[in-house]
Amino acid sequence: MTDTPRRRGAARTEELLRATLDLAAEVGYAGLSIEAVARRAGVGKHTIYRRWPSMAALLLDALSVVWASNLDYRDTGDVRADLREQFLRSSQALAGPPIGPVYRAVIAEAQADATLRATLHERFLVTVEQSTLDRLTRAQHTGELVAEANLEFAAEVLCGTLYYRHLLSTRPIDEHAIDGLLDMFMAAYGTTA
Amino acid sequence: MTDTPRRRGAARTEELLRATLDLAAEVGYAGLSIEAVARRAGVGKHTIYRRWPSMAALLLDALSVVWASNLDYRDTGDVRADLREQFLRSSQALAGPPIGPVYRAVIAEAQADATLRATLHERFLVTVEQSTLDRLTRAQHTGELVAEANLEFAAEVLCGTLYYRHLLSTRPIDEHAIDGLLDMFMAAYGTTA
Repeated sequence: MTDTPRRRGAARTEELLRATLDLAAEVGYAGLSIEAVARRAGVGKHTIYRRWPSMAALLLDALSVVWASNLDYRDTGDVRADLREQFLRSSQALAGPPIGPVYRAVIAEAQADATLRATLHERFLVTVEQSTLDRLTRAQHTGELVAEANLEFAAEVLCGTLYYRHLLSTRPIDEHAIDGLLDMFMAAYGTTA
Repeated sequence: MTDTPRRRGAARTEELLRATLDLAAEVGYAGLSIEAVARRAGVGKHTIYRRWPSMAALLLDALSVVWASNLDYRDTGDVRADLREQFLRSSQALAGPPIGPVYRAVIAEAQADATLRATLHERFLVTVEQSTLDRLTRAQHTGELVAEANLEFAAEVLCGTLYYRHLLSTRPIDEHAIDGLLDMFMAAYGTTA
């Protein structure tokens, strides 16, 4: 592949976003500033401001870099096992750096900012729900889930329960919690229940 | 009832907490300060600091005043209808002042403060889940829900899905959402499914 200007630009962007996450993991959200990110990444702060109007916007893009690889469900033909594996993987990603503290901080910011909340929902939660819905839909086609199940809503229930525990509970998202959730889901919509 | 010093103290506390909520509804969380609350309530700010170490602690107590009356499930003998009625009522309370914006702000604060998160969980979420679990348990005793259902986890799923929509979604908690959730719950654990 040729080293085009566009490719060099994309590489620089990814470097900047990774520097943002590294810094966030070190100093925490409260210690972050566009100036500090610029210093760490070795760019002028106007370079950052030109593209990202706020720290939250920059962090959303930074999260996307490390996030995408965590979204894919396996398809082994056993929907319960595939959901379980993915939920465990996501919960581990949520629990620690680089995603954990930064994502939590963006969610907090979004509580006072409806526009950021809409962006957050569109960029992350809708993607997570859609990816879950796709896996459920395949399971419905192969006969693991009942034909009349409202899978769109089920995907929201599955994701929502885990986020609730992460954001509002002192309980961990552990195997016990994930099995409890999947027990209820399969009792509702599994064909072998 | 005699007008004892203790009773007068409790009345003054409730007045102060209501003044806090009124002010929060007017100026928003970002505009709040202990000084402003003291001015509004006509007390010295040290009176407030002596009892509440932080604005978040004061707001948690203020929320408790208006919250308690919103927690009771009816028991008409129809668990689905009773859950539905209570979820609609809670979602209306969450959507606007005085509870809505203040509660959202405390939840945001709690993302950066694990102690506040634990207090929030203990004071509100555990109470909500327990109240839900009590209603589900009665329904299990009367045979509306299957005997082998893990109701403790079900109570968390029910509450969690609604909180997720409130905090991370741009979708409202409307009748459609509540019916989708209850469809799944009753398909899982209802005896008539």
